[in-house]
Amino acid sequence: MSRTQLPTEFQQRVVIENVQPEVDGGRFPIKRCPAEKVLVSATIHCDSSDLLSAVIQYRPAKEKSWKEVPLELSNPGMDLWDGEFIVETLGRYEYTVQSWVDTFGTWRRDLSKKYEAGLDVTNEMLLGGRLIRAAASRAQGADLDSLRRRIDALTNASDKASQVQAALDSDLFSLVTRFPDRTQATTYRTLGITVERERARYGAWYEMFPRSAGSQPDRAATLRLAEQRLMGIAKMGFDVLYLAPIHPIGKSFRKGPNNKPKAGPNDPGSPWAIGSPEGGHKDIEPTLGTLEDFDHFVKEADHLGLEIALDLAFQCSPDHPYVQNHPEWFRHRLDGTIQYAENPPKKYEDIYPLDFQCADWQSLWDELKDVVIFWIKRGVYIFRVDNPHTKPYRFWEWLIREVQEKYPKTLFLAEAFTRPKVMEQLAKCGFSQSYTYFTWRTTKPELTEYLDELTQTEIKECLRPNFFTNTPDILHEFLQKGGRPAFQIRLILAATLGANYGIYGPPFELCENRAVAGTEDYLDSEKYQIRSWDWDRPGHIKDLITKINNIRRENPALHFNDSLRFFTINNENLLCYAKTSADLSNIIVTAVNLDPLHVQAGWVQLPFSEWGLKGDYQVHDLLTDHRFQWNGQSNFVQLDPIDLPAHVLRISSAKP
Amino acid sequence: MSRTQLPTEFQQRVVIENVQPEVDGGRFPIKRCPAEKVLVSATIHCDSSDLLSAVIQYRPAKEKSWKEVPLELSNPGMDLWDGEFIVETLGRYEYTVQSWVDTFGTWRRDLSKKYEAGLDVTNEMLLGGRLIRAAASRAQGADLDSLRRRIDALTNASDKASQVQAALDSDLFSLVTRFPDRTQATTYRTLGITVERERARYGAWYEMFPRSAGSQPDRAATLRLAEQRLMGIAKMGFDVLYLAPIHPIGKSFRKGPNNKPKAGPNDPGSPWAIGSPEGGHKDIEPTLGTLEDFDHFVKEADHLGLEIALDLAFQCSPDHPYVQNHPEWFRHRLDGTIQYAENPPKKYEDIYPLDFQCADWQSLWDELKDVVIFWIKRGVYIFRVDNPHTKPYRFWEWLIREVQEKYPKTLFLAEAFTRPKVMEQLAKCGFSQSYTYFTWRTTKPELTEYLDELTQTEIKECLRPNFFTNTPDILHEFLQKGGRPAFQIRLILAATLGANYGIYGPPFELCENRAVAGTEDYLDSEKYQIRSWDWDRPGHIKDLITKINNIRRENPALHFNDSLRFFTINNENLLCYAKTSADLSNIIVTAVNLDPLHVQAGWVQLPFSEWGLKGDYQVHDLLTDHRFQWNGQSNFVQLDPIDLPAHVLRISSAKP
Repeated sequence: MSRTQLPTEFQQRVVIENVQPEVDGGRFPIKRCPAEKVLVSATIHCDSSDLLSAVIQYRPAKEKSWKEVPLELSNPGMDLWDGEFIVETLGRYEYTVQSWVDTFGTWRRDLSKKYEAGLDVTNEMLLGGRLIRAAASRAQGADLDSLRRRIDALTNASDKASQVQAALDSDLFSLVTRFPDRTQATTYRTLGITVERERARYGAWYEMFPRSAGSQPDRAATLRLAEQRLMGIAKMGFDVLYLAPIHPIGKSFRKGPNNKPKAGPNDPGSPWAIGSPEGGHKDIEPTLGTLEDFDHFVKEADHLGLEIALDLAFQCSPDHPYVQNHPEWFRHRLDGTIQYAENPPKKYEDIYPLDFQCADWQSLWDELKDVVIFWIKRGVYIFRVDNPHTKPYRFWEWLIREVQEKYPKTLFLAEAFTRPKVMEQLAKCGFSQSYTYFTWRTTKPELTEYLDELTQTEIKECLRPNFFTNTPDILHEFLQKGGRPAFQIRLILAATLGANYGIYGPPFELCENRAVAGTEDYLDSEKYQIRSWDWDRPGHIKDLITKINNIRRENPALHFNDSLRFFTINNENLLCYAKTSADLSNIIVTAVNLDPLHVQAGWVQLPFSEWGLKGDYQVHDLLTDHRFQWNGQSNFVQLDPIDLPAHVLRISSAKP
Repeated sequence: MSRTQLPTEFQQRVVIENVQPEVDGGRFPIKRCPAEKVLVSATIHCDSSDLLSAVIQYRPAKEKSWKEVPLELSNPGMDLWDGEFIVETLGRYEYTVQSWVDTFGTWRRDLSKKYEAGLDVTNEMLLGGRLIRAAASRAQGADLDSLRRRIDALTNASDKASQVQAALDSDLFSLVTRFPDRTQATTYRTLGITVERERARYGAWYEMFPRSAGSQPDRAATLRLAEQRLMGIAKMGFDVLYLAPIHPIGKSFRKGPNNKPKAGPNDPGSPWAIGSPEGGHKDIEPTLGTLEDFDHFVKEADHLGLEIALDLAFQCSPDHPYVQNHPEWFRHRLDGTIQYAENPPKKYEDIYPLDFQCADWQSLWDELKDVVIFWIKRGVYIFRVDNPHTKPYRFWEWLIREVQEKYPKTLFLAEAFTRPKVMEQLAKCGFSQSYTYFTWRTTKPELTEYLDELTQTEIKECLRPNFFTNTPDILHEFLQKGGRPAFQIRLILAATLGANYGIYGPPFELCENRAVAGTEDYLDSEKYQIRSWDWDRPGHIKDLITKINNIRRENPALHFNDSLRFFTINNENLLCYAKTSADLSNIIVTAVNLDPLHVQAGWVQLPFSEWGLKGDYQVHDLLTDHRFQWNGQSNFVQLDPIDLPAHVLRISSAKP
């Protein structure tokens, strides 16, 4: 019979499977921020009863050598191993799992059993010596010296008992185990991590239209004038100031106030109809000012601790320079005209979509990347991407990776409101954050189910939610009808449920609730007309916003989502949940009355003993600064929306 | 800016994910038998709102061209697509999913909306003509002619209305859709299927020691003599007769009766201590007869409809010819002796394990494959593999694939009783069937949970259970203490829960319940001594076995496991479940009293309306031939173990 030639990996006895976290079999990276842990688990086993060793291997993708941390067998019956490591630097990381038969450990276990049973262990001792010498052949320096001394000691042991004792010594075991024979080790496939800065995970966003920052109705504010608003926004405690598009606005098919099909001569048009003879995606709308004014705006914001986010709306008005200079980047109808946007039978003749599949798609993709880099070079590192789900997934995956490779500080927020699998795919493709369905989740079951899905299932590995209370497109019925308490409720929910949250102001903090009847659109929306606001309009909730943003900054439990946990409370209008820091030094319990119109009360069940608390404990309402005593598991909550519809309670740690 | 060169697959807009069934990301094949369905589901989506087309592609692995069946969008909100195909021939199959943007369907949907809204569709009609001509360029023969006629009809339409109507025609749609442009289609990775004959999925096994087939105590029966038992076994309705090893038995360290450390001069030894000067794994123990006697035995069994299964115990007695001729296939201790089997501190000096990692491992693997092929050439196509979990996974994966490639009829049953992940891995590596924990699952919660896991979770795609009531190693306490009803209970459970089941006889049908005290070992086990049995010993349950095996053959619902469903019954000692054929033409409800000592009664809740039944319906107890009327959902069951501890009921289909 002719000799079979089999691959040497057939000699790998160990199987590694079900490695977690892993997105789509490793097709996409998971996401982390510096100093965050990656908890890794895997099912690892081999034939027979040999012991195994296993490690996590990880490295920044640019480095050649792996760092290693051990995996421990946490559930022997299910062959489940656990371990963790911490990522440190921005950019790509790689990780995998490697495992091999622990020959020395297996030998040691068996020697111990045989010796205890009084069996002859002469052969075992010979084999042990060979295994230690083999380890020594892989060791160097002080370790090699140590191993040599051990071998000598074993050889020269005065009697069998002391020889066996020396062989079973746990220091020897640790030493030998550091130099295993891994020639037949099994290595899992390499998985990826995108490490982004903390702002990807945690931040408070404020969205505004700079042109409406003035105080005179129907008079567009310049960026210079808009700078006067920065102090107020910064004082409220926001981290990111996201500007509606600031580029030249097209005139063709320009929409009038309240989305009227035709604009009047003085109507400014929608900032999302980008491009005019004055320029396109790399230019500033002239009524706002110049690129230098923009630079000044960014710098002033930065002085106040506000980071500017720009809108990436990759679409063009018919007047965009691309239409003249690169007609090949658009789809053409068979009558020779360029195809406008449509959602049949609706037409959007003021918008030309770009054709990401045009014959010259590579030059289009390059140009769009260049747009991003243009603004990065002007100091903008956060981009809110308009309707990413109408552009190919592969485009975003390529763009974000290319940009982050050179500028790893850069963050992208996906504004996709569509089917869940599409939103998840965009997150997988690299978006740092994602808009969510939060705006439409208002009842206790809706909020509980949705938040559990976002924070407790696999999707948390790559989708970071950003909970916006409202947007220029979404003034939810709850806000339209619930009065000032509704705004307070949604603010507190967003800011305590989401490590990332945002408001669109000033309409939000001024409790603006007038909608186009039967829709979620704002009446006299800033999208289509210049508004001017009394930024101190009576009834505003700026004090509450300031308070909640300060609470967020001071309490690390609110900087993460993973620890979110809902509690039983015997009232369907009351929602109660906690976020906790990993070491339980920071415990924030939030109780919210979801009913903006009535007082609601109930008894909440808290896992106080899991938090190390016994009997009485102090709770401190960070919104009112009241302190009171709670006791045990069951405690009474009553919330009057006219007063304040929520408690945000810090619970004193058990440790003094 | 230099032009980026991007891979053309970046132009694939469609994402295909979460394809089911799939084992470990496609690393291992799923399993099927001919005529079985493969239900495929996948999450498929792309950017924007374009419609998609998707197909399953499948083929026998040896063929080049794919067959295709469509996938249908079954859950648009979740982008979930479903489809199915049927495998026909033995051997490997491959399948995958392909999807592309349905340009014509999208165009047609939009045309319809625009036309209904009264918009001008001149451009749309031009585009439609182009799309149809493009389809025609991919069509041939009659289809091409049809498409050309359609183009002419469209061009010559008398007015806009009739032209649009012709463009929206559903026959045209079907025709064009058959010739899509797939140049930018996305194709999922290729997945595998192992198609094995029906006996892999469905069969009744009988295990025996041929040497104990005689009627004289302590006198080994020959194969010729054992042939006399074939008729009785066949009459009971078994499909497979599995023989304990029939090879020459070693003398060194031979064990005596009841596993005594030393055998007496006339003790026959354990058949699993394989190998003596008379030969090894390709030889017959001389006291059983010759290879010709074996051939005769196989042929006689075949005449009676019994298929012979042999034991593959890849280990050697110290007297095995391999020890002399291939000492390099064993592990050597440092004193030069060969390492015997051990489970420290226990020693098994009568057994030398083979070293699957020895330097010359490839020649060892080849030889073991040759052992299998040796018996295949003598007409044996089923192998029960002894302790496969003590040999490397890769060995089995290689061996089974190699053997089945040439002899696709061949089946392998894994006798591994170890941790679940190890047992699952062996199934993934190709074992056609697997022993299970069934023997140790005796209570209602244990049986329900375990059977749900085996039949309703992903593992069903590759692990086919074979429920043995007992084995030479396992006489469970339930059988030891429950008397004859316990044997009846376990028989009926095994035979109706498992499409594959087996008994070890004659001890089982004779209700032999004497164990070595405090163990699951049979007293005076056939493993270590010759037994002779009165095969008609009073109290036997051969009639019940015959009945249940006939019921199994006549009722296709019992040939599968997937449809298994447990019902609520208000008595913890009563277990009630059904198996149904896909078309509901065969519905078998089994109710078992798990308590062998007491009458038990309760009300069972049946999903009668899901079975198309209304009000009264007839149930036919196939064990007693009684027929009675049941009504609606809730029905009374009372079972006296002294009488018969189970009903096996055929429920008349709603259709007359």
